[in-house]
Amino acid sequence: MPVSSQDSTHQPGGLNLDPWYDNYARRTAGLTVSEVRALFAVASRPEVVSLAGGSPFVSALPEELIHRAFKRMMKEHGAEALQYGGGQGIVQLRERILDLMAIEGITGASADDVVTTTGSQHAIDLVTKLFINPGDVILLETPSYVGALGTFKSYEADVRHVDMDEEGLNLEALEAAIHKARAEGKAVKFLYTIPNFNNPTGVTMSAARRREVLDLCIREDVLIVEDNPYGLLYFDEPAPNAIRSLDEDHVLYLGSFSKILSPGVRVGYVLAPHGIREKLILAVESSILSPSSLNQWLVTEYLEGSDWRAQIDTFRGTYRERRDAMLLALEEYLPQLSWTVPNGGFFTWVQLPQSLDSKQMLPRATKELVAYTPGTGFYADGRGHDKMRLSFSLPTPERIRLGVRRLANVINGELEIIETFGSFDNRSADDGRFASAPPDLN
Amino acid sequence: MPVSSQDSTHQPGGLNLDPWYDNYARRTAGLTVSEVRALFAVASRPEVVSLAGGSPFVSALPEELIHRAFKRMMKEHGAEALQYGGGQGIVQLRERILDLMAIEGITGASADDVVTTTGSQHAIDLVTKLFINPGDVILLETPSYVGALGTFKSYEADVRHVDMDEEGLNLEALEAAIHKARAEGKAVKFLYTIPNFNNPTGVTMSAARRREVLDLCIREDVLIVEDNPYGLLYFDEPAPNAIRSLDEDHVLYLGSFSKILSPGVRVGYVLAPHGIREKLILAVESSILSPSSLNQWLVTEYLEGSDWRAQIDTFRGTYRERRDAMLLALEEYLPQLSWTVPNGGFFTWVQLPQSLDSKQMLPRATKELVAYTPGTGFYADGRGHDKMRLSFSLPTPERIRLGVRRLANVINGELEIIETFGSFDNRSADDGRFASAPPDLN
Repeated sequence: MPVSSQDSTHQPGGLNLDPWYDNYARRTAGLTVSEVRALFAVASRPEVVSLAGGSPFVSALPEELIHRAFKRMMKEHGAEALQYGGGQGIVQLRERILDLMAIEGITGASADDVVTTTGSQHAIDLVTKLFINPGDVILLETPSYVGALGTFKSYEADVRHVDMDEEGLNLEALEAAIHKARAEGKAVKFLYTIPNFNNPTGVTMSAARRREVLDLCIREDVLIVEDNPYGLLYFDEPAPNAIRSLDEDHVLYLGSFSKILSPGVRVGYVLAPHGIREKLILAVESSILSPSSLNQWLVTEYLEGSDWRAQIDTFRGTYRERRDAMLLALEEYLPQLSWTVPNGGFFTWVQLPQSLDSKQMLPRATKELVAYTPGTGFYADGRGHDKMRLSFSLPTPERIRLGVRRLANVINGELEIIETFGSFDNRSADDGRFASAPPDLN
Repeated sequence: MPVSSQDSTHQPGGLNLDPWYDNYARRTAGLTVSEVRALFAVASRPEVVSLAGGSPFVSALPEELIHRAFKRMMKEHGAEALQYGGGQGIVQLRERILDLMAIEGITGASADDVVTTTGSQHAIDLVTKLFINPGDVILLETPSYVGALGTFKSYEADVRHVDMDEEGLNLEALEAAIHKARAEGKAVKFLYTIPNFNNPTGVTMSAARRREVLDLCIREDVLIVEDNPYGLLYFDEPAPNAIRSLDEDHVLYLGSFSKILSPGVRVGYVLAPHGIREKLILAVESSILSPSSLNQWLVTEYLEGSDWRAQIDTFRGTYRERRDAMLLALEEYLPQLSWTVPNGGFFTWVQLPQSLDSKQMLPRATKELVAYTPGTGFYADGRGHDKMRLSFSLPTPERIRLGVRRLANVINGELEIIETFGSFDNRSADDGRFASAPPDLN
């Protein structure tokens, strides 16, 4: 047998039928199967109202717009669209991306500093690959996107939580986390934040807080990874300008077409400080040679040939209506609970009574034909058992109402059981394995 | 300043204007800019005959076939194509992929064991991520694909060369490399081979050699990564059956639509042993959430609605004609050199006189309006200065002839200079930095 440098501590003594088990890299232990994956498969049955996923409502996009973009693409750029492209992405698209970013206050950027990626997840993966040695610290706005957390673990990062309040990242917690990590001799590589309509909480960082977080990170020499997939999908008033609009040297900005056009095209982008941009291009080439030319041209022709601003307004209207339906249903059926009121995006974050465990309750909910995402997935430290994320992006208002009604039945039923038989006592057994993103958990 | 765990040995003492320079991960030192990238940019000017790239001739694909596939896709699967998909890829495509693999003798495989990726490069990246700890050994059929070499370096692999002969991988060299690495206490994680029409040499591994290599790898417990982007593009007779057709447990098989349909769709695939398949899906999710649904459905509808076998025959005819033009031109203009005679694929591999340095000669060649790929890029150890890869996939037969004629002028001119002034003496200064794949160097 080969001499193995593999870490033998994961699944010690476990029976494993994979003959290559001892050959995997240490980091592969960080890639774990979600224990709720099987339940999500059940939740995708049509009779289940899924408030679990994070998929956009692509049916709000007239297919005619896609047909038109495709025809324009094939007519003007057919051979290019079918061929390999450059690692940085096509310049025509990168120029249109500047228009999008300008809406959120990012002006004066150059298409030269934009890199297109296979969705934002790809950008998260590449940035982590570029910066993280095993054990390096990533400061994570908490709770946060499960897919980012999974990727950070897959590079053996030391993920340190930084809690939020109603204005976003807590400044004192951030400063303390930086100092603590450095006092331990750790390299703090970056802060990851979703300042607009955070996934999972829906909370938006205030303009003042953005300035304070940035100033602290400049003072402490910490790079900010600003992930902004939902920014243009505000409901009432626009979110404050992007952190990147305040500083170009300390912020790596991630955007995506997944929520304002289609996730099926897998087109995301990064606006990066110059030196990092160079390395990102090399990382793109190393991982996929070049992003899909076809998809990049399709998005370019969509942006050039359609009123994409009006289409974003359509999406905003749809999601606003669904957010309203969600909040109304929560008030009607679960008035004893509390939840966040998002001003954009796809999610609200529900606080359950302490005695409930949202992960343990999920099978019962699924049986009652409603699904949600348990809170534990959004923490690396086992917290979140008394939280759940509810998504309003995909189901109709009627289905949202039905789903919340069913959820109320489940929650009230659980509370009755607890009242009768006592609380769950195995809550502390949560091992945080819910780390990788199942397909519908965006 | 943050405590840095970064390796300070790369570019020691160099002036670097990137303020984040000290923050990168160690592995990022393995992502280096190709020193011939600037020249390739020049080589993409229309007046230059480029024999350098590895791009397929996508114009041999009737655009009507793509239009038809797109219409079918939007009609039947529009909403799915625009939405997120699963990490493993859509099952309808995975089932069609079984038909492709069956042509090369892989029968009895299940769509369950297929994972679709963002081109084959993505598969190479993910497999390396799954298996390689820094310092782990990858055995590399040599010379080999520059993009694989770059990815291996980006995970800090210890790449060990295994030379080829006219029947493919040299068996004694392979066995010796395994034993030597293990004697040094190294973990040998996998063997990487392109058995059909190898990039860059065009050499095909014989059927007998496939059996021998497999038997050795089974005996020694070494995983084989069989990369087969060109297999269906044979000219005279089909290549021997895939190594994977002989064994399902020790071979991870990589395929791609880039050369038989379009690289612009970035759709590749892996057929993996069961346990590895599971981990690959998690790695796909961690890197990009899911491959592009739109591109996967487009390829599926192309396979279901077109005579794709006839289209592959069209490609084969085109490339055969160009191969013939290349070999004839070499015989006519450079009869004093030797080169390989490929039975498929895109490349021939030319042996230059020892006194020539193909990398140093490239600027002169570009000035004479012809480009090629210097041999050094296909080795990690600085060899290859007296080799060059010539590609016949993209230029017309007439342009190939013109390119080789220009190349002969350059080579003969260089030889004259050397005869007059003596040989280059800085050949040993080659530092192997030509490691990452520039956009047109596939």
